Amino acid sequence: MISIHHLTNSRSQRIIWLLEELDVEYTIIFHERDKKTRQAADSLHQVHSLGKAPVLIDETLSLAETGAIVDYLLETYGKDKLVIATGYPARTDYLYWKNFAEASLMPYLAMTKLFSRIEQGTPFIVRPIAKLVIKKINKEYLHANLVTEVNLIERHLSEHQWFAGDQFTAADILMGFMLDALCGKFITKTSHPNSCNFVEEIKARPAYQRAKEKGKWSEKEFNLYWNHLRIGS
Amino acid sequence: MISIHHLTNSRSQRIIWLLEELDVEYTIIFHERDKKTRQAADSLHQVHSLGKAPVLIDETLSLAETGAIVDYLLETYGKDKLVIATGYPARTDYLYWKNFAEASLMPYLAMTKLFSRIEQGTPFIVRPIAKLVIKKINKEYLHANLVTEVNLIERHLSEHQWFAGDQFTAADILMGFMLDALCGKFITKTSHPNSCNFVEEIKARPAYQRAKEKGKWSEKEFNLYWNHLRIGS
Repeated sequence: MISIHHLTNSRSQRIIWLLEELDVEYTIIFHERDKKTRQAADSLHQVHSLGKAPVLIDETLSLAETGAIVDYLLETYGKDKLVIATGYPARTDYLYWKNFAEASLMPYLAMTKLFSRIEQGTPFIVRPIAKLVIKKINKEYLHANLVTEVNLIERHLSEHQWFAGDQFTAADILMGFMLDALCGKFITKTSHPNSCNFVEEIKARPAYQRAKEKGKWSEKEFNLYWNHLRIGS
Repeated sequence: MISIHHLTNSRSQRIIWLLEELDVEYTIIFHERDKKTRQAADSLHQVHSLGKAPVLIDETLSLAETGAIVDYLLETYGKDKLVIATGYPARTDYLYWKNFAEASLMPYLAMTKLFSRIEQGTPFIVRPIAKLVIKKINKEYLHANLVTEVNLIERHLSEHQWFAGDQFTAADILMGFMLDALCGKFITKTSHPNSCNFVEEIKARPAYQRAKEKGKWSEKEFNLYWNHLRIGS
């Protein structure tokens, strides 16, 4: 029996969603964020030394790192679902977006979050200076890179229904989560219609809906967490 | 014929090294960093809209994102080399470290670089404040996370010769590069002997040596680039 260590309202929701799409049985072990620091709970450090979710348990196997968990689940329980097999033309798109989600898009999103935390944590008296420095970094580096990335995504989705070919895959799960953080804030239905429509489509999936309930997903909490991405904020 | 867009003395060196390990024919298209900003050359924006290296060209295919390029090359030209096949016990280690390198370790390293750039770019008059803020972030967040990660790596390498099982794989190429940035600076032969010995071992590989020459790799430049990781700096 599979179990998944899950930090509520975090990226590990994607693995619950994946498990629902695969129609595999599993149990969820819930962990909460520290109410004050908003960091992952200490309880996660007892599961994996990095203290992060998700961690997948399958019999004696304990595996962390979202990208690795996705590959493992698809190989072990996927029955060729949610993946583009080797040799098919869309395989490279699958590989590209699956890796892009974790290694290119997520780090920039995580950095914007870190900077917003720094700003809030800077002593009141020097906060205006911190604000100026962060504004400059956002303008010249973080937001600039994010703009390039969301434009690339929008262009891809204007030509394709899904990230890899004409079928829904794990790449859509990984990418969809982050587009959800961006849509209505950093990008809008007017500026990036295909990306925001994509978010609506994935949210309508029965497996997404079931995962939402089972993972105790709060759209409100999620949007509050990423609210610093709001343009002009 | 494969060609690879390569930014000199950057992470894309890993793909050249991989190609040498695979013994595949290829050509290199060199790009240089901007002398002033140290950022990737503008010429890369003509290759891929993200303006980053590496980008692999194979006939009509153009593929970015290191993790995706590694998977593609192994699937297409690997002949089962440098990978642990599905179903073998070390497969999960392979998946874990390959994904960890790009999605967990590299983002922290990139963030330390970004902060060191911010410090240098902050106007002289407020630099002491920026220095204090960055010192706090490093202590409480970046360095703290890096310490957890390097300790996990050291523990793994104290029990295994390679990152995935008893044979050299692409996971070692991805991880080795970053350990090279850390060894002798953030960690030492005394504090993390297995990690630093691992770096020496990979550097002695004939394929690494050939890649060094073909990719115009400068150890001096690389060490200067990551010098801010030096403990106490």
